[in-house]
Amino acid sequence: MSKKESITTRKADPCAGSCPVGRAAQILDGRWTTRIVRDLLPGRRRYSELLRSLAGISPKVLSARLHFLEEEGVVSKTTYPEVPPRTEYELTARGYRLQPVIAAMAAFGQSLED
Amino acid sequence: MSKKESITTRKADPCAGSCPVGRAAQILDGRWTTRIVRDLLPGRRRYSELLRSLAGISPKVLSARLHFLEEEGVVSKTTYPEVPPRTEYELTARGYRLQPVIAAMAAFGQSLED
Repeated sequence: MSKKESITTRKADPCAGSCPVGRAAQILDGRWTTRIVRDLLPGRRRYSELLRSLAGISPKVLSARLHFLEEEGVVSKTTYPEVPPRTEYELTARGYRLQPVIAAMAAFGQSLED
Repeated sequence: MSKKESITTRKADPCAGSCPVGRAAQILDGRWTTRIVRDLLPGRRRYSELLRSLAGISPKVLSARLHFLEEEGVVSKTTYPEVPPRTEYELTARGYRLQPVIAAMAAFGQSLED
């Protein structure tokens, strides 16, 4: 989808801001977001650890998704003034409220293999 | 994301086929899929009804997402030989297994407004 098309669609979508499922879908949009949240559920992770555990994600996409999740208040970032600087990410209270969504998705995904 | 990039990423992602959350995320990918499933939960819908209830979706995107969900065994399509032909979509048994995911997303989306 082109950027222009995406913006046009968002404008034309009265549900986007108001319906709860649409709001959750906006936050979980993309093929990586749920996996980033899943990998943060056990606790805080360094950027490099996420890059490793999310095999196949590009550094650019991981940074963009983490930044988006920070803006949405789902993830918080801490940078330690070390050399080299260490950056860690963890779920906020809001982020942990996604746990039932991830659990339901895991159960559904599991059922596909039965 | 370009088509080429998408295919490359999928190839490089060993989780895509095997981890349950990743598998569910693949099916629910995109900003419309969860809303299409949500609108089919009450029962079968005509294509034109979905186009109306999913305000802002383009006919092209709706067709593509329905086709994808059919291929994934989540939605089934029935065409009635009338003039003009009537096409209806409904969730399969597998599709109804997404209900807990949609419910968890609705609860999360609702919690954002509290």
